Amino acid sequence: MNTTPTPHPDAAPLWRRAAAELIGTGLLVTVVVGSGIAAQRLSPGDVGLQLLENSLATALGLTVLILIFQTLSGAHFNPVVTLADRLLGTRHRPTEITAYLLAQIVGSIGGAILANLMFDTSTTISATDRLSTGHPLGEVVATAGLVLLIFALARTGRSAIVAPAVGAYIGAAYWFTSSTSFANPAVTLGRVFTDTFAGIAPASALWFIAAQLIGAAFGIVLVLLLFPNRKVHA
Amino acid sequence: MNTTPTPHPDAAPLWRRAAAELIGTGLLVTVVVGSGIAAQRLSPGDVGLQLLENSLATALGLTVLILIFQTLSGAHFNPVVTLADRLLGTRHRPTEITAYLLAQIVGSIGGAILANLMFDTSTTISATDRLSTGHPLGEVVATAGLVLLIFALARTGRSAIVAPAVGAYIGAAYWFTSSTSFANPAVTLGRVFTDTFAGIAPASALWFIAAQLIGAAFGIVLVLLLFPNRKVHA
Amino acid sequence: MNTTPTPHPDAAPLWRRAAAELIGTGLLVTVVVGSGIAAQRLSPGDVGLQLLENSLATALGLTVLILIFQTLSGAHFNPVVTLADRLLGTRHRPTEITAYLLAQIVGSIGGAILANLMFDTSTTISATDRLSTGHPLGEVVATAGLVLLIFALARTGRSAIVAPAVGAYIGAAYWFTSSTSFANPAVTLGRVFTDTFAGIAPASALWFIAAQLIGAAFGIVLVLLLFPNRKVHA
Amino acid sequence: MNTTPTPHPDAAPLWRRAAAELIGTGLLVTVVVGSGIAAQRLSPGDVGLQLLENSLATALGLTVLILIFQTLSGAHFNPVVTLADRLLGTRHRPTEITAYLLAQIVGSIGGAILANLMFDTSTTISATDRLSTGHPLGEVVATAGLVLLIFALARTGRSAIVAPAVGAYIGAAYWFTSSTSFANPAVTLGRVFTDTFAGIAPASALWFIAAQLIGAAFGIVLVLLLFPNRKVHA
Repeated sequence: MNTTPTPHPDAAPLWRRAAAELIGTGLLVTVVVGSGIAAQRLSPGDVGLQLLENSLATALGLTVLILIFQTLSGAHFNPVVTLADRLLGTRHRPTEITAYLLAQIVGSIGGAILANLMFDTSTTISATDRLSTGHPLGEVVATAGLVLLIFALARTGRSAIVAPAVGAYIGAAYWFTSSTSFANPAVTLGRVFTDTFAGIAPASALWFIAAQLIGAAFGIVLVLLLFPNRKVHA
Repeated sequence: MNTTPTPHPDAAPLWRRAAAELIGTGLLVTVVVGSGIAAQRLSPGDVGLQLLENSLATALGLTVLILIFQTLSGAHFNPVVTLADRLLGTRHRPTEITAYLLAQIVGSIGGAILANLMFDTSTTISATDRLSTGHPLGEVVATAGLVLLIFALARTGRSAIVAPAVGAYIGAAYWFTSSTSFANPAVTLGRVFTDTFAGIAPASALWFIAAQLIGAAFGIVLVLLLFPNRKVHA
Repeated sequence: MNTTPTPHPDAAPLWRRAAAELIGTGLLVTVVVGSGIAAQRLSPGDVGLQLLENSLATALGLTVLILIFQTLSGAHFNPVVTLADRLLGTRHRPTEITAYLLAQIVGSIGGAILANLMFDTSTTISATDRLSTGHPLGEVVATAGLVLLIFALARTGRSAIVAPAVGAYIGAAYWFTSSTSFANPAVTLGRVFTDTFAGIAPASALWFIAAQLIGAAFGIVLVLLLFPNRKVHA
Repeated sequence: MNTTPTPHPDAAPLWRRAAAELIGTGLLVTVVVGSGIAAQRLSPGDVGLQLLENSLATALGLTVLILIFQTLSGAHFNPVVTLADRLLGTRHRPTEITAYLLAQIVGSIGGAILANLMFDTSTTISATDRLSTGHPLGEVVATAGLVLLIFALARTGRSAIVAPAVGAYIGAAYWFTSSTSFANPAVTLGRVFTDTFAGIAPASALWFIAAQLIGAAFGIVLVLLLFPNRKVHA
C-alpha cells in the first residue's frame, strides 16, 4: 500500500524476531480457532454461515497480524514460507530457520490453548476427521497458491501490500479449496489442540502437512518459472 | 495502491506471459467453481447465502490473481480485455493475441476440471439453463462496466489499483446484474464444464458470450467518449 | 490510495463531465436497485440477509464508480455534494451546477429503469412507505456524516482515498442509521421508480430529501468548524 | 495508504481536537449500537447473522471515522489509546489528556442516545449480563492486541494505514475474542446506555473496563519489548 521499503529482517536481534513469529503465529491460530468457536455457538446448525464468519474473521485478522509483525520478522507465521524464503532468496542461517520453525510451532499450540481458555473450552485433541479424496489436492493447491502469491509480490517489489493480499487469499481459499485451506504446517499442528469448529484430527493433520509440503514445492517451481529474477523492478 | 509503474508486458517472453494467462484464468475459474460448490454444499437450500459466499470468495480471489500476474502478462484473464486492449492501446502482434486467447480458453477449462477434482465431482457438461429475458442485458451491462473500469484506470495512470478495483466490481456485479455477471467469454466457456452451482449450459453460454461481445463494444465506445486521451496524467 | 494529484475537474469539457455524472449516478442506482432485487429474490423472507447482500454490493459498487469517474467529474453523483462543493470550495459556475444536478436526476431515474429491465420488472412507482419517527433523523445523520467525510478528506489532501472511504461509509450507514442511509436526493428520487426492495414511496421520498438537505447543512457547519482551512497540507 | 505524513496533532487548538474526539467517539458508539439494533430487528432469532452484520458495519464505520479525524486529534476515541500514547511517545500535557478522556466519555454516551433516538428506542440502562469465566480474558487479549497494532504501526512509520488496520482488527476481534471485543473503556461505558443488542449491564461493564486496563498494560509491555525504538524508519 505504501512505498516505504521494509527494512531487512536482520535489523532486529534473533530473539525479538523469533518472539514475533511465536506471538504472530499464536494469535493467527487464536483468530482461526476463536472465530470458529464463536461461529459454531452463534450460528448453530448453519455450517455455511459458520464458515463465512470464520473466513471473514480470519482474512481480516491475518491481514492485521502481518501488518504488525512484517517489519520485524517478515511475518512468515508458516514453516513453508520460512523454508521457501531460504530456497528462493534471503540467506538465513540454520540457527535462524530453527528458531523460526520452533517459534511457529510453539506459538501455534499456545494460540489454540488461548482460544480454548477465552471460550471456556478444555484443550483436548480434535476428533474432526478431514480426510476425503479431494482434500489433499485442496491443500496442494492452497499452499502452492500461497507461495506463488508471496514470492510474486516479493520479486516484483510489492511486498508492501503482502498483508491485505495474503489475508484476501486465505479468505477466498477457505471457500475455493475443498479442504478450507489450512496451507500451513504449524497452524495445522496447532489446530489439533482444539476439539471445536476449526480442529483437525492428528491423522488428518499428517496428510494435510504432507500435501502442504508438496504444494509448497510446486509453488516454488512456479515462482522460478514465472518470476525467475529476484527483483524485476525496485 | 502503489505508485510504482508497471513494466511493459513485453518485458517477459511470450511463453511466460501466456503461461501467466493460462494459470491465472485457470485459477480464476477454480475460485468461481470451487467456492460455488463449497457454498452449495455448506448452505443447502439457501441460494442467497450461497451467492454471498460465492461472490465474496470470487471478489477476494480475483483481486489476488490480478496482483500475482499483473506485472507479468497484464492479468487479462479475459478475451474481451485482450481484444479491447488491442483496440484501445497496446500494440499487440497477432501471435500474442492468439496466444493469450488460447491460454485463457485452455486455462479456463482446466480450472473447472481442477475444481471438480478437488471437490470429488465428475467433470460433466452443465445443465443449468441461465437464459431469461433480462439476462443478456445483464451481461451487456456487466461487460461494458468491466471494460470501462479497466481502461478508465489505465488512461488516467491508475492501473496500480486495478486489482482491488476489478475484484470489487465483480463482487458487486454478481448482485446488481440479473445474470450474476459472467462478463468473460473464456470463463463462461470454462463454466460449461461443471454441473454445479457456477455451471452454465452450452446453449446459455453462447447467448452469454454474444451479449458479452456487445457489452465490450459498448464499453469501448464509452471509454473513447469519456476518456479520449490515452493518458491524462502519468 | 495513490499520491497522484487528481486534475482539476475543469480539465474536461462540461458535456463530458455531465455525462460522467449521468452515467455514474445512473449506475449507482442500478447497483442499489439491482442488488436489492437480487437479494429479495434469492433470500426470500430473510430481510436481514437481504440488507447484508444489498449493502455489501452497494459499498463495493459505489467505490468502483467513484474510481471510474473521479478524475473526470469529481464523481459527486449527489446534489448535496455538488452544492456543498460550491459552498466549501470549488468555484463552479451556475451552468455547471445546473448541468450536474440535471445529469444526476436524469441518470438516477434511468438507472432504476435499467435495473428493472435487467430483472424483468416493470417500472412502477414504489409503494414502500419509509416514514417512521426516527427515519428523518437517520437521514440527517447519514447525510451530515457523508459531507463531513468527503470534505475532511479534501481539506487534508487525501481525496485520493475518497472512493473506498465513501464506499465503506455507505456500507456501514445502511446499518447504523435507521433509514438505511439514502443520503442523496437524486438517488432517493430514482428509487421512487422501482417497486422493489430498494424502492421508496413518493411521500416518504419528499421527507427524506428534506432531511438530507438539513443533514447536508449540518455537515457543512461541522466541516467549517473542524476543518476551517481549505487544505491543511498538500 | 498514502505516504503523506500526518501533521502533529498539536497543529489544531485543543477545543477542536477535543470536539473531534467527542464526535468521533460518539459516532463510533452510534455505529456499534445502531447497527446492533438494525441487525437485531432485521435478523430476529439468528444471533450469528446479527453479529456478522454488526461486526461488518463496525469495521467499515470505524475505519471511516479514523480517516475523518486522524489528522485532527489522532482519532484515539479510546482512553487506553490516549493513555498509552502518553506513556509510549507523544508528550501530552495533563490538560490535554483530561480533555480527551472527558470528550471520549461524553461523546460515547451521546452516541448511544443518538442511536436510540434514530431507532425510536428509549434510553435505558442495559440489562445484558456479559460476565462469564472467559470474557475478561477476551477483553485482555482484545485490548492488548489493539494497543500493539496501533503502536507497532506508529513506531515503524506506518500510521497512514492505521484506519483500515484498526477497522479490520475490530472486525476480526468481534469474532475471535469470547467477549466480542469491546476493548475501549469509553465505548463500554456508552454501551451501558442502551438496552439493545450492543448493550452491557453496568456490573459487567466494570469488569470489562478492568480487564481492558490490564490488557492495555500488557499491550504496552509488548510494544516496548518488540518495538523498542520510537521510529524504526521514517
